[in-house]
Amino acid sequence: MTLEPIAQTPKPPYYAVIFSSVYGAKPDDGYIQTAEEMIRLAALQDGFLGVESADRTAEGFGITVSYWRDEDAIKNWKNQADHLAAQQAGVQKFYKAYTTRIARVERDYEKA
Amino acid sequence: MTLEPIAQTPKPPYYAVIFSSVYGAKPDDGYIQTAEEMIRLAALQDGFLGVESADRTAEGFGITVSYWRDEDAIKNWKNQADHLAAQQAGVQKFYKAYTTRIARVERDYEKA
Repeated sequence: MTLEPIAQTPKPPYYAVIFSSVYGAKPDDGYIQTAEEMIRLAALQDGFLGVESADRTAEGFGITVSYWRDEDAIKNWKNQADHLAAQQAGVQKFYKAYTTRIARVERDYEKA
Repeated sequence: MTLEPIAQTPKPPYYAVIFSSVYGAKPDDGYIQTAEEMIRLAALQDGFLGVESADRTAEGFGITVSYWRDEDAIKNWKNQADHLAAQQAGVQKFYKAYTTRIARVERDYEKA
C-alpha cells in the first residue's frame, strides 16, 4: 500500500485521532505487519479520510494521526473486530506507553 | 533540552497543532537548529502544554504535534517574532509541502 505522506483531507471540520506511542517490541514481534494491516483495514472503514505516520526508530517513539469524517466513524473503527484484537496485542505486547487523543480539526492551511 | 517523547497534557479540552511536513533541505541547511530553537521558544510561551515530534528521515516526512491551553495561546505563538522568521524560512527554504491543522482535543486515554 502506497501512502502519500501528507493526508489529503477535506475542508474542516473533521476529526483527528493522534496516537503517540513508545513501543517495546522488536520489529520481528509482528508489530510492523500488524500496524500495516491496521492501516489497510482503517482505509476500508466508512468515514476514513487519511492517515499519517512517522517514528523515531532509535527511541521507539512514533506518532500516527488518522483522520475521520465524524465521531461515529471513529467509534466504529475503535470497535472493529480485527482492530480490537490489535489493540489487545498493543496493550499486552507492543507498547510500553501510549496516549490516544481524539480531536476536532477546526481549521487547516497548507503549502502544497 | 530533554523531552519525554509523549507529552504530559492536562485533562481535555485543550488544543493540538498538528504540523505534517515534507522537507527538502539538507540537515546542514540550518533546519535542525531552527527546529530545536522553535521548540525551545514554544516552551516559553504562555499556554504551551507540550510537544511531540517524529520523522521518517529517509523520506523527509515529519509530524510535530504541539499542545496548547487555548486558541489565544496558539495565536500568540503563531505571531511570535522569531517564530514568524522561522515560518518564512520554512516556506522559502525548508519545506516542499506541509499541512498545519488546528484541532480541539476532546478526550484522551493512555497506557502510562
